[in-house]
Amino acid sequence: MNIRFYNVRLITMEGGVWVEEGELWVKGNKIAYVGAENKEAAAKESWDREIDGQGNVLMPGFKDAHTHSAMTFLRSYADDLPLLDWLHKQVFPMEAKLCPEHIAPLTKLAIMEYLTSGITANLDMYYFAEEIARAAIETGFRTVIQGSVGGDASGAERLRQEYEKFKNFHELISYQLGFHAEYTASRELLEAVAALAEEYKQPVFTHNSESESEVAQCIEKTGMTPTAYLDSLGIFNYGGTTFHCVHMTDEDLDICKKRNISVVTNPGSNTKLASGVARINDMLKWGINLGIGTDGPASNNCLDMFREMFLVTGLGKLKEKDAAAIDANDVLYMATAGGAKAMGLTDCDTLKEGKLADLVMIDLHQPNMQPLNNIAKNIVYSGSKQNVKLTMVNGRVLYEDGKFYIGEEPEAIYAKANEIIQEFKK
Amino acid sequence: MNIRFYNVRLITMEGGVWVEEGELWVKGNKIAYVGAENKEAAAKESWDREIDGQGNVLMPGFKDAHTHSAMTFLRSYADDLPLLDWLHKQVFPMEAKLCPEHIAPLTKLAIMEYLTSGITANLDMYYFAEEIARAAIETGFRTVIQGSVGGDASGAERLRQEYEKFKNFHELISYQLGFHAEYTASRELLEAVAALAEEYKQPVFTHNSESESEVAQCIEKTGMTPTAYLDSLGIFNYGGTTFHCVHMTDEDLDICKKRNISVVTNPGSNTKLASGVARINDMLKWGINLGIGTDGPASNNCLDMFREMFLVTGLGKLKEKDAAAIDANDVLYMATAGGAKAMGLTDCDTLKEGKLADLVMIDLHQPNMQPLNNIAKNIVYSGSKQNVKLTMVNGRVLYEDGKFYIGEEPEAIYAKANEIIQEFKK
Repeated sequence: MNIRFYNVRLITMEGGVWVEEGELWVKGNKIAYVGAENKEAAAKESWDREIDGQGNVLMPGFKDAHTHSAMTFLRSYADDLPLLDWLHKQVFPMEAKLCPEHIAPLTKLAIMEYLTSGITANLDMYYFAEEIARAAIETGFRTVIQGSVGGDASGAERLRQEYEKFKNFHELISYQLGFHAEYTASRELLEAVAALAEEYKQPVFTHNSESESEVAQCIEKTGMTPTAYLDSLGIFNYGGTTFHCVHMTDEDLDICKKRNISVVTNPGSNTKLASGVARINDMLKWGINLGIGTDGPASNNCLDMFREMFLVTGLGKLKEKDAAAIDANDVLYMATAGGAKAMGLTDCDTLKEGKLADLVMIDLHQPNMQPLNNIAKNIVYSGSKQNVKLTMVNGRVLYEDGKFYIGEEPEAIYAKANEIIQEFKK
Repeated sequence: MNIRFYNVRLITMEGGVWVEEGELWVKGNKIAYVGAENKEAAAKESWDREIDGQGNVLMPGFKDAHTHSAMTFLRSYADDLPLLDWLHKQVFPMEAKLCPEHIAPLTKLAIMEYLTSGITANLDMYYFAEEIARAAIETGFRTVIQGSVGGDASGAERLRQEYEKFKNFHELISYQLGFHAEYTASRELLEAVAALAEEYKQPVFTHNSESESEVAQCIEKTGMTPTAYLDSLGIFNYGGTTFHCVHMTDEDLDICKKRNISVVTNPGSNTKLASGVARINDMLKWGINLGIGTDGPASNNCLDMFREMFLVTGLGKLKEKDAAAIDANDVLYMATAGGAKAMGLTDCDTLKEGKLADLVMIDLHQPNMQPLNNIAKNIVYSGSKQNVKLTMVNGRVLYEDGKFYIGEEPEAIYAKANEIIQEFKK
């Protein structure tokens, strides 16, 4: 499909955050032109659709840089419980009931929600990778699947197999080496993962320093923080991306900077599970690349980049006791290009000729976006799912004016999710 | 208009939070029936509309218990600045340019946003009360206007005049005695306000203990916290409602309980201005009535009860380091019936026969509301403006399926707001 968006305000995220009026062309799955209005040139092209943007914003799609999509079945299943009760008595027993056939429909439910929030790609970490890929491909969504092995060293072989399988699997799917977390992996496994990273010259992805107790236990066991311990094993010799990073020392931040480790912050989940507030202001000062993730719907509970963006800056301001901390423009970068970088996506991070057409149209014709004092700050501070007018992934419109174009009826996906959880509750 | 909602899930907020299937009738501006499906009785009535709720939730409208609506003109005008720079260099100089004719259109812009968030009434505190009332009446919105005098004792006479003027002004308008804050009022004014409260046997409304420095200054000046100082003057002899209450001592909470003072929490604003986190968990333990307010759009910046609800429980969990703190059901009460009580609204707080028909329909046919493990928790933890399908105030549908029925075109209101701020920037 060749689609022309005209009469739009562009936030390209190329080299900074500003707004310019113009138009954008999509040919196939790529951006063919971004810039000033060009009616004359456009008239010579053949268009499947010409979309009058009515002055709305066109910007790169948000990137959900850490999530567990299929956990939709546990949304609002067990809230307001102490963390360990929630995890051990509620989440783990229910997850044990999951079979491969449950994953695609539960993941599709999450993908629908991503689309309503203008999210065009996620980094997904969950069981049954092939089913995650199926959900993404069938709906047309872009997913980076991340290895999440744990336990003894045998996990490394599974990780290698997954990597080999998914590295050239489909244009919507990519894969990153990874393990669940330091506290669920044996030293042997971690060494084997480091060897794989060395062999493939690839970065490694993992949960990191989410809770105080996890950090304390690692120090007791190894004499080092999780970041330092993992680094000492060579895990990050080719970079990496670690999630949460709520309890980080200055030395940990030094390691992130030195090893080119991106930090993905998950403020919604860290808030709801009372894990704490990450040192985002310091990470910005250190020059660490930052992305934002929703975490899974069991802990957050919603998959909404607008909520996360407000929390990144809001919690940072509270932590620093400084209303000037963490500028909204930095947050918009994290939610788009920063997240893409953290996920290893280099071709759908900004609006630029030749990049993949992963973008979102933000409806400014809503009271929460008016007046137009500062459009980027309106998006970060007042934006909501209500403002997502259109979400395009890989050149295809998957969501527009509240309707989904994902090859399946929404109600069928809702029914399936309800059926699965009802069955599990028996 | 007589309107029947059938095939709905009711959360009445009468005596607790639960969900029951049934129907609700509106006759004129009142609720005429709430309960089980009753096709037979309904068939004997004459209806202007019968609305198939498609299994969606019908619940009392949210109550925005503290805001400054007309500050919409300053949304995203000056963010990410230190608090005092923001206030003295940006907000105050711009506010000084406001004339009465600016207030109604700027307030209408806020009212539109309230409607998109399912808010059916607000407690509004701003300049030019008559213009606030005009905006509410012209759009059909319910507003409690609050006196906000400051300075010397002469303010008390203005307060009396406003009270007399608005106490029986219009069915959509009520009025509460109040002053801006302890730190902007002379002792003489506060004594005069206390005398008015005594004379009218009315509660008093005010900002209270929003920032650390405000509390410290009051202690230095009077030897007492703001709450204790105001109480010592007899301000709260007939109860009251105070806003923010971020920095409160145990003794302050004792006074709130003893004097029947409601606390309205403003977590979005307190977060963005780095003011701190209120002791909501303790206030619940103390048995203090709680409401939720968005504060004005210059500080928050959005007027969204879904954001506020998540923050009330999320920040409370962080503060207590306990994922079990502040149950979502308590938050839903604060956002509806608790807020109504704090605002002095006793007739539009719950869904009950005879109550005013101020209600909202929450769309469950959206991915963020599925599966239906716990609908009330879905609303608090995953809800968004996107889920507001219909907002009714005083028996009239003012917002439905993204369209406004407020007697004026949205684009005209947006244009006016932009015109005002552009003029002020000159």
